[in-house]
Amino acid sequence: MASSSSSSSLSPPGVPLELHVTNREKLLSSLRHDLSHSSRPLHGFVFLQGGDEQTRHDTDHIELFRQESFFAYLFGVREPGFYGAIDITTGNSILFAPRLPSDYAVWLGEVKPLSHFKERYMVSMVYYTDEITEVLHDQFQGSGKPLLFLLHGLNTDSNNYAKPAQFEGVDKFEKDLTTLHPILTECRVLKSDKELALIQFANDISSEAHVEVMRKTRVGMKEYQLESMFLHHTYMYGGCRHCSYTCICATGENSSVLHYGHAAAPNDRALEDGDMALLDMGAEYHFYGSDITCSFPVNGKFTSDQSLIYNAVLDAHDAVISTMKPGVNWVDMHLLAEKIILESLKKGCIIVGNVDDMMAERLGAVFMPHGLGHFLGIDTHDPGGYLKGLERRKEPGLRSLRTVRELQEGMVITVEPGCYFIDALLLPAMESSNASRFFNQEGIGRFKCFGGVRIESDVHVTASGCKNMTKCPRKTWEIEAVMAGEPWPLDKTL
Amino acid sequence: MASSSSSSSLSPPGVPLELHVTNREKLLSSLRHDLSHSSRPLHGFVFLQGGDEQTRHDTDHIELFRQESFFAYLFGVREPGFYGAIDITTGNSILFAPRLPSDYAVWLGEVKPLSHFKERYMVSMVYYTDEITEVLHDQFQGSGKPLLFLLHGLNTDSNNYAKPAQFEGVDKFEKDLTTLHPILTECRVLKSDKELALIQFANDISSEAHVEVMRKTRVGMKEYQLESMFLHHTYMYGGCRHCSYTCICATGENSSVLHYGHAAAPNDRALEDGDMALLDMGAEYHFYGSDITCSFPVNGKFTSDQSLIYNAVLDAHDAVISTMKPGVNWVDMHLLAEKIILESLKKGCIIVGNVDDMMAERLGAVFMPHGLGHFLGIDTHDPGGYLKGLERRKEPGLRSLRTVRELQEGMVITVEPGCYFIDALLLPAMESSNASRFFNQEGIGRFKCFGGVRIESDVHVTASGCKNMTKCPRKTWEIEAVMAGEPWPLDKTL
Repeated sequence: MASSSSSSSLSPPGVPLELHVTNREKLLSSLRHDLSHSSRPLHGFVFLQGGDEQTRHDTDHIELFRQESFFAYLFGVREPGFYGAIDITTGNSILFAPRLPSDYAVWLGEVKPLSHFKERYMVSMVYYTDEITEVLHDQFQGSGKPLLFLLHGLNTDSNNYAKPAQFEGVDKFEKDLTTLHPILTECRVLKSDKELALIQFANDISSEAHVEVMRKTRVGMKEYQLESMFLHHTYMYGGCRHCSYTCICATGENSSVLHYGHAAAPNDRALEDGDMALLDMGAEYHFYGSDITCSFPVNGKFTSDQSLIYNAVLDAHDAVISTMKPGVNWVDMHLLAEKIILESLKKGCIIVGNVDDMMAERLGAVFMPHGLGHFLGIDTHDPGGYLKGLERRKEPGLRSLRTVRELQEGMVITVEPGCYFIDALLLPAMESSNASRFFNQEGIGRFKCFGGVRIESDVHVTASGCKNMTKCPRKTWEIEAVMAGEPWPLDKTL
Repeated sequence: MASSSSSSSLSPPGVPLELHVTNREKLLSSLRHDLSHSSRPLHGFVFLQGGDEQTRHDTDHIELFRQESFFAYLFGVREPGFYGAIDITTGNSILFAPRLPSDYAVWLGEVKPLSHFKERYMVSMVYYTDEITEVLHDQFQGSGKPLLFLLHGLNTDSNNYAKPAQFEGVDKFEKDLTTLHPILTECRVLKSDKELALIQFANDISSEAHVEVMRKTRVGMKEYQLESMFLHHTYMYGGCRHCSYTCICATGENSSVLHYGHAAAPNDRALEDGDMALLDMGAEYHFYGSDITCSFPVNGKFTSDQSLIYNAVLDAHDAVISTMKPGVNWVDMHLLAEKIILESLKKGCIIVGNVDDMMAERLGAVFMPHGLGHFLGIDTHDPGGYLKGLERRKEPGLRSLRTVRELQEGMVITVEPGCYFIDALLLPAMESSNASRFFNQEGIGRFKCFGGVRIESDVHVTASGCKNMTKCPRKTWEIEAVMAGEPWPLDKTL
């Protein structure tokens, strides 16, 4: 990465639309396998509805459109108002484009011919959305009403259901609402090389932007100025118009608010000397995202207390990544991170007693109430964490896990241990009959307004281990050097 | 404004929440006047529902929340999930806040006491949203079921209707769906000094950002890089987290696409030597917006053809602003702009014949199909353009006007004449029996891929005339000087 304060060594890669051809082939293969396995005919269509533009309340203010994620996965279409089908018998892919009014050309741009979309999105055919019923009836090779495999299933992060495609004429089809969702979701869990390349680019530009922000952070700035610098770097040099999620730019005590940065807590505090900053920011490129957190002292120098907490979290982060490989269970990784953090806090005389006893009391969840990490892809919280009847755990901390699965080659998952001093959790714990014995009142008193530390990397599970896709300075001395103006990566010859 | 290339002479002003007290008083006064006038009792409550956060499809991705505009006008609340009431009898204002779950403190931040909102938003009382029915029944001083004045009415820009507040228990009230909307909308049309100050700041920081972008524009850049620079400048130095609308960064032929920049035309072209750029970008500060367009040659030097079109539009822009004052009709201003543009095009030998004949044939609408301007405030297209039974005109160009009203002191309206070479309009006109005689085929041929020019300022109608709130370089030599590195405003002593 460049060491200059206002440029980049990166540039946006070409958008690989054949990626979505591969995604469709993968789905088709999985779906055919599933149908054959249950002795069902290989007839019918996968049928999805893309997203539409939304206006704000009654006004004509249009929010910048970003495609629905399942539709983006299969078709890569950036325009609103499309539908898409995959013929299970032939493997043909069909896009249905909205028929635009003639004055579209005046207000919104060239009305592109259907051939444009056929070529760009590498599909077999393109028709208009008012031709869906006719085309699918024509193409159907089974008997009776054509069968549509529609998307319907639970998102276990939001508890919302994916909405099956709706269109005029849908009653002229048979509908299957149960088969598609688990199969398509599972396709998304295991990333192809082309998908990994996009996630890597989102990581590269976001890592570089984090370094930029670290370098330019100054006492007295507002938190949102750090957000602005990140957004600018990733868009200006990475072509990333969207972020994976609203930036969390938390400093001082705010860094213990896990999802800070939203409209009611809008990154508007001024940075003070002695603060830690916790910046959780990730850009998205051609639908695929990144999710990166850096924590650092805003004045560029760690105090011993800041180092203590930071290294507790970094040790957990590094230990998890060293252990990750196919077959490892994610709950065990969460517990490993917890244990390392508790051991460090004990070494730092913040807590006292036997660490196994602490683990039995779920003390780790007082300091890290969130899960260790989540799948990452087209969604920041990519789906598939609880497929195949897996059950959510009930214990504090573990119940926040977005997956309890065993790792498999091709997964991309965030590793994001944290250690926070949250009054809403600490005060009850320090007064509880079971947990109070673990606290060194004097030790923990020093951290009353400390906030918290989180370190988050995006990790790709490989055949034999894993690869950290995130490239930020992580050791305290690396952070201090970069903030003092050293190039990143550090020049190891010096 | 600073001439330095990476800073600002501005900083975000304090947020004047008393502005919304004034807004409520204004509504109350208008509404009481209207009720008295029609011999209705001064009983009941204005009752509005604020906006809620939206997730993207089935996921837990939350779009950054921005308050619904009518609710923002009356209460200035930045948080989602609120309701608000104004007691018509007493004038008391009541906010209803969502009752947040206890784990909100862990994930989203401090659960603020009701007193926090009472103080911040300067209202008479604050309760929880689950207390609406009880509180309003207690407060009501009339007889029978309490009366709610709910918001229901047409937005004439979107053709959508404002949605009346919905809550559990709404059936325990009488409802009036017709009185509030026109009165509240008319309040928004005429801006108070405090509102004007916010619109002025949004203009100041956006004008400065436009100058920044002009200075840093280089052949070979991508259009979205201009957008990124604008967004960064207004957020970094102006604290503007939202823009009034998606940035239109159109260069070359794209500058004839009036609403370029959306997801299907995402500012992704590379700038070429000889292009004109048309940048329509405005930041929003504490709900109040700006809407500014600058047009300039990307290489910093106008050609004679570029000057011809640019000055045609600038002359129209300046003539309208010179003429604007209370009592002037907006349709006349549109026609004035058209006429000046046609006269310039005739002088430039692009069209030939009698300008009055051209006006009668609506030739102006071929070159400027959009309306001259629109009200600006909390919405970019602020409502109220067709209140009081005013009818939309049917002629090309005029039918696109977002208002046909007479100007009044306190209005803020955009003045945005443009001249575009749009094949979808030009080709039919050049072949039509009535209009073809006006075109000099050779003259217009030179402009085939020219695109277009728009110059847009935000103008405040004063008692005796008007004030241009936008502060961008407008003369061709000002633009060339600024792009060559001169400070802005130009140093007139040199």
